[in-house]
Amino acid sequence: MKKSIFYHAGCPVCVSAEHDIIGLVGANNVEVVNIGEDRSRISEAEKAGVKSVPALVTPNGNTLHINYGASMADVKG
Amino acid sequence: MKKSIFYHAGCPVCVSAEHDIIGLVGANNVEVVNIGEDRSRISEAEKAGVKSVPALVTPNGNTLHINYGASMADVKG
Repeated sequence: MKKSIFYHAGCPVCVSAEHDIIGLVGANNVEVVNIGEDRSRISEAEKAGVKSVPALVTPNGNTLHINYGASMADVKG
Repeated sequence: MKKSIFYHAGCPVCVSAEHDIIGLVGANNVEVVNIGEDRSRISEAEKAGVKSVPALVTPNGNTLHINYGASMADVKG
């Protein structure tokens, strides 16, 4: 199965959501990307429709914004 | 494993998120509750920390608000 991608920026809301998502979906089914550290992947996240983090992009390409940690503008700023 | 509970109110954002969550977590691991129709469960959802729908309450009691369909005030109004 294609993996989901969980984008986050290290914020407390992100870390909490990451634990929940991994608990639900399984660590093997999710790639975790910290776009605060790995800034080369910000544009990829934006193209996937990520407007805020944490967000989960599903294998079929839908973006689920989960709770609210930071906007993409905050991450880039 | 204890099930997660997915609260929604039948809105288009909710239906889309429901499909995604069931695809990720598996239908057997999620109870789906339409609080627009089953209004007796609105107070239960609020006690679990649901502020808007769609939302997923995990087996350990965390509430993940997913995208944004409607506020609880909208659902009650």
